[in-house]
Amino acid sequence: MSVESLPLSADTVRVLTAVSTGTLTTVLLKKGLRNVWMRGTMPLAPGQPRLVGRAFTLRFVPAREDLATPASWGSPISTRAAIEAMPACCIAVVGAMNVTDAGIFGDILCARMKKRGVAGLVTDGVVRDISGVLGTGLPVWCRGTAAPPSVAGLTFVGWQEAIDCGGVAVFPNDIVVVDQDGAVLIPAALLDDVIKAAVEQERLEDWIMKQVEQGQALPGLYPPNAENQAKYEAWKKTLP
Amino acid sequence: MSVESLPLSADTVRVLTAVSTGTLTTVLLKKGLRNVWMRGTMPLAPGQPRLVGRAFTLRFVPAREDLATPASWGSPISTRAAIEAMPACCIAVVGAMNVTDAGIFGDILCARMKKRGVAGLVTDGVVRDISGVLGTGLPVWCRGTAAPPSVAGLTFVGWQEAIDCGGVAVFPNDIVVVDQDGAVLIPAALLDDVIKAAVEQERLEDWIMKQVEQGQALPGLYPPNAENQAKYEAWKKTLP
Amino acid sequence: MSVESLPLSADTVRVLTAVSTGTLTTVLLKKGLRNVWMRGTMPLAPGQPRLVGRAFTLRFVPAREDLATPASWGSPISTRAAIEAMPACCIAVVGAMNVTDAGIFGDILCARMKKRGVAGLVTDGVVRDISGVLGTGLPVWCRGTAAPPSVAGLTFVGWQEAIDCGGVAVFPNDIVVVDQDGAVLIPAALLDDVIKAAVEQERLEDWIMKQVEQGQALPGLYPPNAENQAKYEAWKKTLP
Amino acid sequence: MSVESLPLSADTVRVLTAVSTGTLTTVLLKKGLRNVWMRGTMPLAPGQPRLVGRAFTLRFVPAREDLATPASWGSPISTRAAIEAMPACCIAVVGAMNVTDAGIFGDILCARMKKRGVAGLVTDGVVRDISGVLGTGLPVWCRGTAAPPSVAGLTFVGWQEAIDCGGVAVFPNDIVVVDQDGAVLIPAALLDDVIKAAVEQERLEDWIMKQVEQGQALPGLYPPNAENQAKYEAWKKTLP
Amino acid sequence: MSVESLPLSADTVRVLTAVSTGTLTTVLLKKGLRNVWMRGTMPLAPGQPRLVGRAFTLRFVPAREDLATPASWGSPISTRAAIEAMPACCIAVVGAMNVTDAGIFGDILCARMKKRGVAGLVTDGVVRDISGVLGTGLPVWCRGTAAPPSVAGLTFVGWQEAIDCGGVAVFPNDIVVVDQDGAVLIPAALLDDVIKAAVEQERLEDWIMKQVEQGQALPGLYPPNAENQAKYEAWKKTLP
Amino acid sequence: MSVESLPLSADTVRVLTAVSTGTLTTVLLKKGLRNVWMRGTMPLAPGQPRLVGRAFTLRFVPAREDLATPASWGSPISTRAAIEAMPACCIAVVGAMNVTDAGIFGDILCARMKKRGVAGLVTDGVVRDISGVLGTGLPVWCRGTAAPPSVAGLTFVGWQEAIDCGGVAVFPNDIVVVDQDGAVLIPAALLDDVIKAAVEQERLEDWIMKQVEQGQALPGLYPPNAENQAKYEAWKKTLP
Repeated sequence: MSVESLPLSADTVRVLTAVSTGTLTTVLLKKGLRNVWMRGTMPLAPGQPRLVGRAFTLRFVPAREDLATPASWGSPISTRAAIEAMPACCIAVVGAMNVTDAGIFGDILCARMKKRGVAGLVTDGVVRDISGVLGTGLPVWCRGTAAPPSVAGLTFVGWQEAIDCGGVAVFPNDIVVVDQDGAVLIPAALLDDVIKAAVEQERLEDWIMKQVEQGQALPGLYPPNAENQAKYEAWKKTLP
Repeated sequence: MSVESLPLSADTVRVLTAVSTGTLTTVLLKKGLRNVWMRGTMPLAPGQPRLVGRAFTLRFVPAREDLATPASWGSPISTRAAIEAMPACCIAVVGAMNVTDAGIFGDILCARMKKRGVAGLVTDGVVRDISGVLGTGLPVWCRGTAAPPSVAGLTFVGWQEAIDCGGVAVFPNDIVVVDQDGAVLIPAALLDDVIKAAVEQERLEDWIMKQVEQGQALPGLYPPNAENQAKYEAWKKTLP
Repeated sequence: MSVESLPLSADTVRVLTAVSTGTLTTVLLKKGLRNVWMRGTMPLAPGQPRLVGRAFTLRFVPAREDLATPASWGSPISTRAAIEAMPACCIAVVGAMNVTDAGIFGDILCARMKKRGVAGLVTDGVVRDISGVLGTGLPVWCRGTAAPPSVAGLTFVGWQEAIDCGGVAVFPNDIVVVDQDGAVLIPAALLDDVIKAAVEQERLEDWIMKQVEQGQALPGLYPPNAENQAKYEAWKKTLP
Repeated sequence: MSVESLPLSADTVRVLTAVSTGTLTTVLLKKGLRNVWMRGTMPLAPGQPRLVGRAFTLRFVPAREDLATPASWGSPISTRAAIEAMPACCIAVVGAMNVTDAGIFGDILCARMKKRGVAGLVTDGVVRDISGVLGTGLPVWCRGTAAPPSVAGLTFVGWQEAIDCGGVAVFPNDIVVVDQDGAVLIPAALLDDVIKAAVEQERLEDWIMKQVEQGQALPGLYPPNAENQAKYEAWKKTLP
Repeated sequence: MSVESLPLSADTVRVLTAVSTGTLTTVLLKKGLRNVWMRGTMPLAPGQPRLVGRAFTLRFVPAREDLATPASWGSPISTRAAIEAMPACCIAVVGAMNVTDAGIFGDILCARMKKRGVAGLVTDGVVRDISGVLGTGLPVWCRGTAAPPSVAGLTFVGWQEAIDCGGVAVFPNDIVVVDQDGAVLIPAALLDDVIKAAVEQERLEDWIMKQVEQGQALPGLYPPNAENQAKYEAWKKTLP
Repeated sequence: MSVESLPLSADTVRVLTAVSTGTLTTVLLKKGLRNVWMRGTMPLAPGQPRLVGRAFTLRFVPAREDLATPASWGSPISTRAAIEAMPACCIAVVGAMNVTDAGIFGDILCARMKKRGVAGLVTDGVVRDISGVLGTGLPVWCRGTAAPPSVAGLTFVGWQEAIDCGGVAVFPNDIVVVDQDGAVLIPAALLDDVIKAAVEQERLEDWIMKQVEQGQALPGLYPPNAENQAKYEAWKKTLP
């Protein structure tokens, strides 16, 4: 039923941590992927740093009164069991069908995830007990807060399956990068290509920003025409 | 990955075919289930008769340009493969995330389902090539029609899994009844209880309707007070 | 708690039955009222004739599981009691908060309304048991059909109060006109002014339509410039 | 037209002020009530403390240009008159149909409510003049801010009636608890039962959180199996 | 302000009239265009035949009470003037921001369009006076019907500009094909490529449908594997 | 294609900077304009001061994959060219169709606008690279943040045209006032009338607020009856 989770190299984490989600979406769009930004995944607290990790997915369907009960929390297929299956350093990505009136997790579940070394939680739903969740120190990206428990609106059905999170198809072990602008998905198969292009794109935009700060107009600069491209290439050679 | 499909007894089909989805939702509500009607499942053609069958589920997530391609239609996990796994007399229930701008199936897939003896198609999405679909004779309940193919908006990920269809949690082999008012789910575990209560509820409402047609006022009649309940019980004894 | 219902003169009914809801909304807009068309109030069956009547209002709030139960149907404040308070020839206007997944009324309640001489039912919600409702012969304008009973999503709280129906404020005894384009409200205080202007507007548009059928271009004709206004006035004098 | 407002005992306020809205929604769900959290009721300012009080309800319908005017603010049925009817310590709960482009109240009305000793304002709509409202010191839970006055989108129709606030049915004198997660309704008739269960639930969750902090896994702990339940009961006996 | 309208060759019209919008969207998706189907453009009457034509665009912005008045209908920038600028055989494509509570055109404007030889009207909004509009014989694709005039919700601002219609970018003179599944856009620059691929796709799908009717399973057939592709190619050679 | 931009007198800016958007919407409503507040235009950073300026408009339509590409950023009709056409002290008002999953501008474009002396940016869409945008110091009012570039969801089509921004019709050179409550439009033709009424309204509300702070009840005060109006007029005479 569920896909085995994979590690992500420290080097990949290091390199991608230096690339904004804005740059990644530009790079992915150039490769034909327009739909990689998970709608609704906003930082729960100000100042949360950029994170990079493999997606560990959880899936909900709508609540059914015979299934979505507090008793279900003790069943073998429960959010509790899913959390115990999460590897350290993963990013838990929870498909909650954009439901904003039932919180998927509260302080207790977030505390346990933190204990297990989970890097962060990303969902198109909401969390509950916001002060408790913030107290656990687990970084969360979500649509906000609601008091009711998950079973008021959702039935949990499994983990490490393909899911919809914020209108994006997320498969287990896809790479997720999340910062102040929200969460972006990099398909696992495209990782190497994306890294290469992203580092270059980030460097180019830094150089363009410098020109703008010096008063240069945008046409011909962003994107660069031949003349500006040449200037940029020359500048690049001066880098250490 | 997928649950084995089960048959449904001819007797169950016969009895439930005489019960309206309205009556079933009333009975299910009395058992505490308020969320069993799949939003958006409206008859594609006028006059489609009531159907009863086990749910054979299909699941979509949002389109991702590297996965949702015409080429994917030939992969082992495709809507084509799912259709070949459908047993006769099942009702295909397709979770399409309420997407109305990409048609899950067109004439070719519906024709194949009809050939395989599938009883009907229920979805919270839409179909494409409406005149072709109507031509196949497969009864369809859906949100309407759109020209684009499924891959314009959806990625197919599997069959006989728990799904969301129109805001209702549907598990493989749950029972589906569908008529002019749309599709209602009966959880497999509650089937016997529901049948018993539904037949009685249908009979009572028929009797009440007769009283209304004879000019009786509603208070005390619907629901019946002790006096009217007694009259009803007496009438019931006169039935063959 | 509830306002007494008033009759509407046969003469008013006769005159307004000859005026389209399109013309009425134009006339009301010229008097500064832009928000008088109840969104979602579409004919349930093709060919329903235009109706005119005083609004008899019903009000729902969201379902609360301790209140919205089948048992509540027997309480003194119930849809059943409301129906028994409806005068002949009124138009029942039901504020259902645009809820489309719980039917406010089914065949039994509609049959009773028909028996009481209610002219028609207008709601921003839906009805249930569509074939049964059509069978009663009561003309209905609504958002469509759903199987579940009202208590699956709504709690009934009273009648002849100010309500929201389809985004329009409806007060008891306001006048409602409903045809193929849906339901329009005429505030009771504006009735006489509206009738006068509407009859004239209808006549002018008939004349304009004739000119268009004869090939005249629109600029200067609709709205008419001085020359065309004069032609119209001349034509009007030839009317019986 | 309007229900008389009732006081709430200081003891009830004290006890419920120690219970989170998260715990209350869990307790209410166990009693079968899933729909008690008012969508959109978020704190206007950070750090607003938890409040408990009886609901004093206000009701709006959509704007009608002949009724929703600045002049209407002087009529006997106006938000001004409603405010003068509010008892000290109540929580004003305003049903604004989730309208987010017209502010129900600005600085002047909030200042007057503060003067009258109203505990707080809860609405599914928005306020206007946010800096002015914050200046009054009245705690507000709402969907945010908009510049236009209420009459740009809403017509006020009465107070102390049953209302819809954020998709929840609120009756006058129901109990409202509001904190960082938003506003939760406790039906007046269920108050005693809820208090008893809530205090116990809060204590249990505190104990579970402690176990998680000490590294215990979730399965068997939350909800507790027999062994953990016994440990909890033993611990509970050690409490003062 | 507005782009000159262009004719479309009779040959193009003839060829595309034999291709379904379903096939066109498949072909366009293979060229990387997923967003070409105008949401909400459904046939107003049953049985409307497929139409092909150049887009003649009209643009609305929201209503502003100082501009959106009946008097504005006589101004030089009005829907009336736009209609007089429409060439015969064009398809009028009206961007109405998906507004469903104000009808863009009624019987008089549609009658004039019909007189001018306009092929059809496509909009993401609605029309008013449905019986009148149907009476003119102008084929219309839209979201339905509303009684209020355009100025109740919309301000007209120009024609033959780039517009949004149903979430699709439409430029003047793009090609529009519309049938029972709604309206599809072919960018003018891609027309020749699309025609070629569409005719071939239509033929292939016809052949596949025949195989399905003869009982062949879908895997390997749709899309065809090498063996079936060869069979298809052989069959194609037998065509006249 | 685009209207020439006009300056705004320093005096007008000075006077309107002292008037809240709340007061302006009240004044405009009294003149019959209810729809002047641009939905979704919220301050990106806390504490942004009130701004006043002429609108310089930009217009987007939905993304089309053949047009909305990174290459398009270098075309003559591009957001880059539009920015170079902006005069100092204008307020850029961008109609982005309420799209929240593609950022219209990031740090580079905002930096250039700041360099050109643009007063602020108002949009019904979102920006990208929020930390970069905040770093430029350009005040922004918008719906929030998204990582993807504009071309992921939008095609830019022109500037200084009539647009829809947040459901409001904005014409080039209309006056925009924006503060903590969002952005309000003053039609250019109504500017003088609005200024006069707004200053008086602001003064009256200040006086009313003082009375409330001294404990006066609302009825008869807000709006003032004859007695309170006289008191206010007397007080006004004491002003310097």
